[in-house]
Amino acid sequence: MAREASFFRPLGGSELPRFAGRSTFMRLPMIEDPAEVDIALVGFPWDSGSTNRVGQRHGPREIRSNSTMMRLVHQASRIAPYDLCRVADLGDVPVNPINIDDTLERATAFYRDLHQAGAMPLTAGGDHLGTLPILRGIYTGQPMAMVQFDSHSDTNDSYFGDNPYTHGTPFRRAIEEGILDPRRIVQIGIRGSLYSAQDLDWAHEKGIRIIEIEEYFDLGPDRVVEEIRRVVGDAPTYVTFDVDALDPVYAPGTGTPEVGGFTTPEAQRMIRGLRGLNLVGADVMEVAPPFDTADITALTGANLMFELLCVLADAIAKRR
Amino acid sequence: MAREASFFRPLGGSELPRFAGRSTFMRLPMIEDPAEVDIALVGFPWDSGSTNRVGQRHGPREIRSNSTMMRLVHQASRIAPYDLCRVADLGDVPVNPINIDDTLERATAFYRDLHQAGAMPLTAGGDHLGTLPILRGIYTGQPMAMVQFDSHSDTNDSYFGDNPYTHGTPFRRAIEEGILDPRRIVQIGIRGSLYSAQDLDWAHEKGIRIIEIEEYFDLGPDRVVEEIRRVVGDAPTYVTFDVDALDPVYAPGTGTPEVGGFTTPEAQRMIRGLRGLNLVGADVMEVAPPFDTADITALTGANLMFELLCVLADAIAKRR
Amino acid sequence: MAREASFFRPLGGSELPRFAGRSTFMRLPMIEDPAEVDIALVGFPWDSGSTNRVGQRHGPREIRSNSTMMRLVHQASRIAPYDLCRVADLGDVPVNPINIDDTLERATAFYRDLHQAGAMPLTAGGDHLGTLPILRGIYTGQPMAMVQFDSHSDTNDSYFGDNPYTHGTPFRRAIEEGILDPRRIVQIGIRGSLYSAQDLDWAHEKGIRIIEIEEYFDLGPDRVVEEIRRVVGDAPTYVTFDVDALDPVYAPGTGTPEVGGFTTPEAQRMIRGLRGLNLVGADVMEVAPPFDTADITALTGANLMFELLCVLADAIAKRR
Amino acid sequence: MAREASFFRPLGGSELPRFAGRSTFMRLPMIEDPAEVDIALVGFPWDSGSTNRVGQRHGPREIRSNSTMMRLVHQASRIAPYDLCRVADLGDVPVNPINIDDTLERATAFYRDLHQAGAMPLTAGGDHLGTLPILRGIYTGQPMAMVQFDSHSDTNDSYFGDNPYTHGTPFRRAIEEGILDPRRIVQIGIRGSLYSAQDLDWAHEKGIRIIEIEEYFDLGPDRVVEEIRRVVGDAPTYVTFDVDALDPVYAPGTGTPEVGGFTTPEAQRMIRGLRGLNLVGADVMEVAPPFDTADITALTGANLMFELLCVLADAIAKRR
Amino acid sequence: MAREASFFRPLGGSELPRFAGRSTFMRLPMIEDPAEVDIALVGFPWDSGSTNRVGQRHGPREIRSNSTMMRLVHQASRIAPYDLCRVADLGDVPVNPINIDDTLERATAFYRDLHQAGAMPLTAGGDHLGTLPILRGIYTGQPMAMVQFDSHSDTNDSYFGDNPYTHGTPFRRAIEEGILDPRRIVQIGIRGSLYSAQDLDWAHEKGIRIIEIEEYFDLGPDRVVEEIRRVVGDAPTYVTFDVDALDPVYAPGTGTPEVGGFTTPEAQRMIRGLRGLNLVGADVMEVAPPFDTADITALTGANLMFELLCVLADAIAKRR
Amino acid sequence: MAREASFFRPLGGSELPRFAGRSTFMRLPMIEDPAEVDIALVGFPWDSGSTNRVGQRHGPREIRSNSTMMRLVHQASRIAPYDLCRVADLGDVPVNPINIDDTLERATAFYRDLHQAGAMPLTAGGDHLGTLPILRGIYTGQPMAMVQFDSHSDTNDSYFGDNPYTHGTPFRRAIEEGILDPRRIVQIGIRGSLYSAQDLDWAHEKGIRIIEIEEYFDLGPDRVVEEIRRVVGDAPTYVTFDVDALDPVYAPGTGTPEVGGFTTPEAQRMIRGLRGLNLVGADVMEVAPPFDTADITALTGANLMFELLCVLADAIAKRR
Repeated sequence: MAREASFFRPLGGSELPRFAGRSTFMRLPMIEDPAEVDIALVGFPWDSGSTNRVGQRHGPREIRSNSTMMRLVHQASRIAPYDLCRVADLGDVPVNPINIDDTLERATAFYRDLHQAGAMPLTAGGDHLGTLPILRGIYTGQPMAMVQFDSHSDTNDSYFGDNPYTHGTPFRRAIEEGILDPRRIVQIGIRGSLYSAQDLDWAHEKGIRIIEIEEYFDLGPDRVVEEIRRVVGDAPTYVTFDVDALDPVYAPGTGTPEVGGFTTPEAQRMIRGLRGLNLVGADVMEVAPPFDTADITALTGANLMFELLCVLADAIAKRR
Repeated sequence: MAREASFFRPLGGSELPRFAGRSTFMRLPMIEDPAEVDIALVGFPWDSGSTNRVGQRHGPREIRSNSTMMRLVHQASRIAPYDLCRVADLGDVPVNPINIDDTLERATAFYRDLHQAGAMPLTAGGDHLGTLPILRGIYTGQPMAMVQFDSHSDTNDSYFGDNPYTHGTPFRRAIEEGILDPRRIVQIGIRGSLYSAQDLDWAHEKGIRIIEIEEYFDLGPDRVVEEIRRVVGDAPTYVTFDVDALDPVYAPGTGTPEVGGFTTPEAQRMIRGLRGLNLVGADVMEVAPPFDTADITALTGANLMFELLCVLADAIAKRR
Repeated sequence: MAREASFFRPLGGSELPRFAGRSTFMRLPMIEDPAEVDIALVGFPWDSGSTNRVGQRHGPREIRSNSTMMRLVHQASRIAPYDLCRVADLGDVPVNPINIDDTLERATAFYRDLHQAGAMPLTAGGDHLGTLPILRGIYTGQPMAMVQFDSHSDTNDSYFGDNPYTHGTPFRRAIEEGILDPRRIVQIGIRGSLYSAQDLDWAHEKGIRIIEIEEYFDLGPDRVVEEIRRVVGDAPTYVTFDVDALDPVYAPGTGTPEVGGFTTPEAQRMIRGLRGLNLVGADVMEVAPPFDTADITALTGANLMFELLCVLADAIAKRR
Repeated sequence: MAREASFFRPLGGSELPRFAGRSTFMRLPMIEDPAEVDIALVGFPWDSGSTNRVGQRHGPREIRSNSTMMRLVHQASRIAPYDLCRVADLGDVPVNPINIDDTLERATAFYRDLHQAGAMPLTAGGDHLGTLPILRGIYTGQPMAMVQFDSHSDTNDSYFGDNPYTHGTPFRRAIEEGILDPRRIVQIGIRGSLYSAQDLDWAHEKGIRIIEIEEYFDLGPDRVVEEIRRVVGDAPTYVTFDVDALDPVYAPGTGTPEVGGFTTPEAQRMIRGLRGLNLVGADVMEVAPPFDTADITALTGANLMFELLCVLADAIAKRR
Repeated sequence: MAREASFFRPLGGSELPRFAGRSTFMRLPMIEDPAEVDIALVGFPWDSGSTNRVGQRHGPREIRSNSTMMRLVHQASRIAPYDLCRVADLGDVPVNPINIDDTLERATAFYRDLHQAGAMPLTAGGDHLGTLPILRGIYTGQPMAMVQFDSHSDTNDSYFGDNPYTHGTPFRRAIEEGILDPRRIVQIGIRGSLYSAQDLDWAHEKGIRIIEIEEYFDLGPDRVVEEIRRVVGDAPTYVTFDVDALDPVYAPGTGTPEVGGFTTPEAQRMIRGLRGLNLVGADVMEVAPPFDTADITALTGANLMFELLCVLADAIAKRR
Repeated sequence: MAREASFFRPLGGSELPRFAGRSTFMRLPMIEDPAEVDIALVGFPWDSGSTNRVGQRHGPREIRSNSTMMRLVHQASRIAPYDLCRVADLGDVPVNPINIDDTLERATAFYRDLHQAGAMPLTAGGDHLGTLPILRGIYTGQPMAMVQFDSHSDTNDSYFGDNPYTHGTPFRRAIEEGILDPRRIVQIGIRGSLYSAQDLDWAHEKGIRIIEIEEYFDLGPDRVVEEIRRVVGDAPTYVTFDVDALDPVYAPGTGTPEVGGFTTPEAQRMIRGLRGLNLVGADVMEVAPPFDTADITALTGANLMFELLCVLADAIAKRR
């Protein structure tokens, strides 16, 4: 495909070394008008929905900083996302760190604006509650499928009595609101000690396909990809990657680490396997830099964003 | 004064090394009934009122851990607090990290219970909003004086429009509610770049005595103590120590560090100068371990608690 | 099985957030009388037997802190240990950091008291010499089997001439004393450069089944479990897990790291494979927080304790 | 002075929290055309002139990140720089990390362009060799005065034989080229063990006023300011602040730390004392984030930039 | 083979604990005359060829420090290198950190001296440009084979226009100079986003056998070893190990980390598979301690050196 | 004084950069025969006498590493120690980390050998118990004076019952043995909470001059120096510097930090004030790298060694 004049290019390492210059996502320009882009890279600096460790509000800045290491073409698939569509950094969601309800409203409006302008969001967060307003914002009336890499199902009902909005409840809300079709949701990597043996009952009853980590290890990433594709089919599909799906040595900087996860190379393999799905958006969430070491989690977050960017760009190009 | 049978003793280093055993404040017993104590050491694991960096929710645990280094008798004053009154660890305030209003209610009730049981609180926090429910809980109807070590006045009006409760607003609320007498408030160490030249106008109009850091350096700690004593007089006086009052090299692990503060030895000297005031409670706030290095801030927090404990215990003993 | 009134419950995350409140093992009560428990969680804050890096004395405190993240039910096996038996935190072994002989006596007496009160010990250490007084304390006259996850055999004879007690000698002593039956010992993960080609000769001569890491990689965890079960049979079996068995990226905070080990998910799989053995106690040793990063080793230690707790609780329940 | 329409405003914390959004110097816009600004904030990501520890190439990015904490008005002087002149982030000097000569040329051209467009540079570096091309770029033919806060004189002749350009030689070169008038140079804080007793002979012979740290401690900051003002007089004066002038606890993240320096509050006091001089530019150099801890040095660097910005803006305003 | 009197022995842990005493490679003596050794352990403290993150100049010191943990005999192969040949620490290459050309000359002369004295070099670096003067120094006129573990091909042409010598170009230079036979080069682990889809064209055209990471994962380490042996055959073979070949969790302390690599146990397995090749030297490069955490990379570097030492010593012994 | 041919020279930074080459004290040669030196720089890698945090065994290695930053001539006094006498690195005391008695014997013999060969020891440690065998080794029958910079008196009687040798008891033992004359001991910086109000009674009774930190702050360093000189007079004087005398921000990496100490510049000023005393040896103790941050403590330790070296060398030169 020919490269259009309006496409944005990352600042090249041969123009200015990668440790220098603008610290935007992938060294792309910072753009304000979503109508100028096909894929909007967005930061969601937010952790006020967290009942455990916090610091995910610093995630976007550190992911941006580490994303300056990323180059232009995907090594395995040779996808060149910046040749396929218009990609830029659209800045951060305007959060209110002391007000969950206000933030949900602001964020939903932000993503609705993106969506209505024709931009597909690829978000770096941020605690997992953030995915709820993203889904609300891009919702068109048709329930969506979702691929969720995560160690937690995040389908709890409430917290501390009657608080409906936390990082543990977003997908229950989205299902209740009809935004997600639970029979088209697949969760990969679920693990960690349970509150009770009934923790996952609601999710199972709704029809969510849960691949607990033991099943993951038994199947291996390639057969997990097959199962993902079977579950979501050709429905419009959102991909959410909570970095605590990874083993903590690959993502120590997160809010609720659970030992015993899969590796980054395996995650890469699975994301590449999503190529060809009917993708409508994606995110990488729960990067918490204050708990990171040697920037491993932020660097991994930047790489996962690039992996997701490539399959999103490919999906957009193929729709043309 | 004779030591009463009911006094609590820290676990001694000759019984069990200080790196071992219970990790309570000062290695004291964990007690549930506030009626058993004269001074209640309390953790306030809270940071949801913060609009800047967070992680103060982890402050109490790390201060407890570092407080196991503290011994029994104050080196300079020779005050022996555990011989003067009953001191124990009363655990943590039951916070709700995703709900500010709920937490303010829970915390106010918690401190009111302490107060009504006759226990004076000495709190380790936690973001500075936490001081508001403490003050509400111990309020008896008579406006209190306050000694505030801080780099920020924390008398802002609101945030992001109409949010009245953040770590930047507690003392405006307490003054509005009549809990604090602004003409009996002295703030020491105020500094840092301003939003506008009018930032401190409200505080000045209300009559708060603000000792900005330049005046502090000109006066020195001894004359600052004199000024503190002049302002608060014999009113019932609460002491709040935000560790960002210290220069960041002495307290890097905090939410909003401001370079150019005073030192820990100077802080110790000033707290010792509070002996003899009509003290009714105290706190050490804004310790944020995820941003700390080498545990310096948590260790400093534990030491400042011990400094405050000694002057509180002395005040209680003298009232008898 | 019905839950008995005397069973202890971890403090729930819905009562108080996990970053708050008591920092005991698994948020369980701290109990003094071992007769009240079936399984005693114990800290062994000790490193004075180490000839290499030290800091394991800080292991129990950090493992306790990280264990507050653990919930109630095992995700893979659905074992609910706190429903099966009485489990509590029995505090720390009363070590004397400057006297090995004194500590061995104190520790042996401590574990003998536990044992005689009917409590099975699950210990968090602490250098590996600590396992010797544990074994002495629970020894009933019948030689025990042992499953040892470790990169080192720890069957050296002496150090610096005639010093018989170091972290490299505990199992030679225990075999010499008849406490362990060497033909029922299996060591998994042995590796690291050798002092001489004869390093393991004594162990081999005694009949210890050594699975060096190369054999481990060839067999894989499932067949290693089979071999473990074959070796220990139905003998009373102690399980000791030196975290240096893990690859250092999974446990950097340890005294003598050896690159090239197995992963935490593999360790979990093997521990789960011990279910049904005639277990009499267990430990997780050599966690050295000063050399840790991002709390990975302490978090892993807490998780391994929970894994071991589940198989111990299951063993106790099945004996009833 | 009335605020002009073309003045740039930092993004306010009430619009977007300080941990969010653009990570430019002071949250100012990133501007390409120097003609649009009066003061150009510039990063000089460079360390290839260092013969000791490196990592200063990462200085600008981390200073930018920490500068997002800065607000609008100076607390002590009430200078409001963004009301006085047009200030923006002009990006980074286009360095070539593997070629010193090429970088000197590129940088000199970059600063000459700024200068010719009427923008005064305020630079964040970067090893101290960087100050040479800055001086070359703003040189008008009249030798300049210089205030140098530093632990090293940086007037060595060469290195490893005949290499004339290192972080230890910039001011010898600038003096030789007639850019600096040595009798108008004052160096404050010089210390550290010497190569020989003759280390400073050349500087003394040229007439540089060296205030070694012992003299500094004897005089105190206020009298040092007097001496600075006496030396530079009303000559056009450049200010260079090497953060190793500070005691290493205030600036651990630097290339060549020397214990025994002055404090950040003292540095602030001295910079404020430069108000009213005929200032033509300034820099904060030698921030090396890989050796920093808790971001102390980067935060200090951002604050020193703001201090310098205020006196530069005041100088510009007064010239009008 | 009998041990000769002139063989050097590492200082034993039973003579002096491993945390004490000389911090040379493997605790071997520091020797000046290369004629006294068969294998020269050399540090190459260099990073001035790096266009990305730096700090590799500190690699040799930290690798030396961590190498004091290494004992005498290889655990898997039972190779005892110090019994097979004379091995000692020959110190560091005399680099000039501000002059690439000067350093290339000095280093080439240094390695030529080693070579002519009959010593085979085993180097710890240092950025990858360092391998070029090593190869020049040991070049005998016959093009060599090379086994390169790396995430980058390092066969770029130039940088920033016409700079031919960077850490990204050494092997293009060596091939152009006829030192390496490209058809005998095998690169293992190549990955990371690309500048363009043509990045590897030159290398492929020259006949280099590139095993990208996807092929590596498909083949597994044992079949990769077969392929390595097929490519290099019996040619004189140099082995270069860039630690960024490892997944960043196994080597975070490096200049240009690329997620998704292989593990240290896999690297060990592959190096052991090089036994029997016609080896002429080796190196472990790109260890950058300022970006390391918990010394993982430096410890891994020391272990990889020991692995390489064993196969080199075996090769030398077999030639006798 | 003319420089003798046998004098040792540190490796110069112009020969090999400071980050390269031998990591001995001050880059001096490692010498085995004490008869070749006038001042022996010695490491005492020891912490087994510590009842609190450990890791001081790693102190010598890190101090050596940081000492490579030191140059040749003292900046303030212009003392050139390597021109005044023969100074070299004599390696480490042969400690036995698991046996205190054995180590005391080995260390005493080591220092006695040094002493009898005419070498004056300057030691880097290591926990403070280490100073006891140093004193025993250099004792000539005449009780010595001692200048002790410390936050603790270290004159406790015993620990855990009847253990006489810990880091808290060395000077009580030395006084009991007649090695130190208590009326010629001056302790500067004593502080920290007390076990009881009687903690210092024994020391006071023996006549030790204790300058608690409050008196220190009142007197200031210059008058403290006067008092030191008055107390020790012209007696043979040993200087021991426990880095916990410094405020923890200047020395976080130590076993028992106590907030509220003096600064490194003040320490430098006091050590310089010891010039002209009848000095017989010195040490810098309690550097514990695992608790350090940004190498501040190790760098400070290296600088304090150089300060002490200069006054020792001056004393030796003046005796000639």
